[in-house]
Amino acid sequence: MSTERPLRARLHIGVIGGAECDEQTARIAEEVGRLVAREGAVLVCGGMRGVMEAACRGAKEAGGTTIGILPGADRSQGNDYLDVAVATGFGEARNLAIIKTADAIIALPGSYGTLSEIGFALRMGKRVIGLDTWDIEGVVRAETAEEAVRLALGQD
Amino acid sequence: MSTERPLRARLHIGVIGGAECDEQTARIAEEVGRLVAREGAVLVCGGMRGVMEAACRGAKEAGGTTIGILPGADRSQGNDYLDVAVATGFGEARNLAIIKTADAIIALPGSYGTLSEIGFALRMGKRVIGLDTWDIEGVVRAETAEEAVRLALGQD
Amino acid sequence: MSTERPLRARLHIGVIGGAECDEQTARIAEEVGRLVAREGAVLVCGGMRGVMEAACRGAKEAGGTTIGILPGADRSQGNDYLDVAVATGFGEARNLAIIKTADAIIALPGSYGTLSEIGFALRMGKRVIGLDTWDIEGVVRAETAEEAVRLALGQD
Amino acid sequence: MSTERPLRARLHIGVIGGAECDEQTARIAEEVGRLVAREGAVLVCGGMRGVMEAACRGAKEAGGTTIGILPGADRSQGNDYLDVAVATGFGEARNLAIIKTADAIIALPGSYGTLSEIGFALRMGKRVIGLDTWDIEGVVRAETAEEAVRLALGQD
Repeated sequence: MSTERPLRARLHIGVIGGAECDEQTARIAEEVGRLVAREGAVLVCGGMRGVMEAACRGAKEAGGTTIGILPGADRSQGNDYLDVAVATGFGEARNLAIIKTADAIIALPGSYGTLSEIGFALRMGKRVIGLDTWDIEGVVRAETAEEAVRLALGQD
Repeated sequence: MSTERPLRARLHIGVIGGAECDEQTARIAEEVGRLVAREGAVLVCGGMRGVMEAACRGAKEAGGTTIGILPGADRSQGNDYLDVAVATGFGEARNLAIIKTADAIIALPGSYGTLSEIGFALRMGKRVIGLDTWDIEGVVRAETAEEAVRLALGQD
Repeated sequence: MSTERPLRARLHIGVIGGAECDEQTARIAEEVGRLVAREGAVLVCGGMRGVMEAACRGAKEAGGTTIGILPGADRSQGNDYLDVAVATGFGEARNLAIIKTADAIIALPGSYGTLSEIGFALRMGKRVIGLDTWDIEGVVRAETAEEAVRLALGQD
Repeated sequence: MSTERPLRARLHIGVIGGAECDEQTARIAEEVGRLVAREGAVLVCGGMRGVMEAACRGAKEAGGTTIGILPGADRSQGNDYLDVAVATGFGEARNLAIIKTADAIIALPGSYGTLSEIGFALRMGKRVIGLDTWDIEGVVRAETAEEAVRLALGQD
C-alpha cells in the first residue's frame, strides 16, 4: 500500500463489541486488530475499553492506525491505543458514526449495544462479519479472527 | 385518568416497526395504537409511514395523543395522525430519542432499523414487547395487540 | 382556532435563553409564554429551567401547550410546566431540534448557548426576534414581550 | 515533537469558517493550516470546502495531519486534503463534535453557521481566536494568520 494514499482512502474496518470483555474475547479482539492492521486497513471503533481497547492494542502492535469515535466530550476519554480520538458528546448516538465511517464491520461478543450496532450496520447495507456474537440473518459468520478479517476485507 | 395530569406524566408507549408494511401488519399496528390510547397512554413513534402511521391512526381514532420524533428538519414530514411533531434533523439517530422518551416499547414487524431500535431499547433497560418481530432474548413476546399493550403497560 | 387542527399544524414559537435568569428576565419570559399561548401558538423550548421554565409557566397560565426537547435521557428532567417532554440524550445537540421544530424564534437574555442557537436559527432561515439579547445582524429586535410575539407571529 | 506521541495527544486546532469563501480568505485559511501543521498540531475541521478545504490544503503542504468530521454518511464526501474522515450522518449537529474534539478554535470569515460554532465553542470554554470574523465578546481577535495560530496554541 503506497504511503501516499491518505488514511481516509484505505479500507476502514469497524470493530464492535462489549465495553467489558473476558480474557478470551480480548485475545480474539487483539488478533482481529492485528490482522486488520497487517492488511493495511484502518481500525475504527468506539474508542473505549473491552473489545475496543483490545482490538486497538492489537492494531498498534502491528503498526496500524486506530480511530476512536467517543461518546463523551473529551478526547482524553479514549483508550491508550488510539491514534485519532474524536470527541462527539453524542452519547450512544456516536455508534451510528462508527458504522457510517467503516466500510465493513466485525462484530465480537457484546450485549444489546452491539446488537443495536449490528442492526444499524445491516440497515446501512454494510457487510457485517460476526465472530461469536448475535446470530442475526444477514451477518456473515466467521470462526476465527483470521477468517473474520478476510471476510471483512472482501477477500472471499 | 385526570385531565389535570400533563401528557408528559402519562405512560408513554413507543411503537416501532417498518416504515413500509403490509395490510395485515397495518391492521395490527392500528389496533395497538387504539388500545394504547384507550388506556390513556401516549403513543410515541418515529412519525413516518408504515407501522408508525397505522399506529397513530389507531390512537387518534380512539381519541389518544400521538408524538412523532422525525428524522428530518421539517415538521410537515410527519404522517397525518400526529398531534405533536418534533423535527430533529438527526436522521436515524432520532431513533434513540424515541426509545428514551418511551417508558416501554412495542415492536412490530420491521427490518434492520427495527432490530437496531430493539437492541437500543434493551440496552436502555426498557421493557420491549415483540409482536411478530425479531426474536431476541429479552424481548417479551405477545401474540395479539391486546396482549402486547397489556404487557407494555405492565399489567401482567 | 379550530379545535380540530392538530397541534403540529399550529404555529410553533421557539423560546430560547439562559437556563438561569434573574427575576426581571423571568417576568418577561413568562409574559412571552402567555402571549404565545393566547395567540394559539405552541411554545417549543429546551424544557429546562430559567427562561425556558418561565416561558412555559406563562404559556400554561394562559391555557397553552408547551413542548420541551430535553438534553438528557429522561422525561422527568424537564420543568413542571411541560405538556410534552421529549428525552433525546443528545446533550446540547438537542438545541438544533428546538430550532428545526419551531417556525420562529424569540431569543431572550442568555449566554453563549443562546448565541449558538441564534446563529443556528438564522442559518436555518428562521425568523429570530431578539428581546434584550445578543445584537446580531439578522435578528429583529423587539422592545417588549408583546412586540416580540407579534413579530414572531409575522403580524407586522 | 516526538514521533512516538500519538496524534490524539497533540494539540488539536479546530478551524471553522464558510463552506464557500473568496480567494483572499482561502489564502489566509491555507496559511493558518500551514502554520498549525508546522507547530506540530493537528487540524480539525468540518471536512468540506471553502475555508475547511483551504486550511487542510495548507496543513498538508506543511506535512501536517488533518481530521474532517463530516455531516454526511459517506467518507468520500470530504475534501481532498483530509487524512482522517469521520462520516457522522448527523448533519449540522456534527459541528459540536468539531468543537469538542479541538483544544482551541480559529474562526475565519463565515456566515451564521460559523457564528453558531463560535457560540458553542465559547460555551464549552474553548479558546476562540477570531480572524476577520464575527466580533463576539470572548473571542480573541488576531490580525494575521501567524498571530491567530500563536494565540490558539497559547503562545502568548
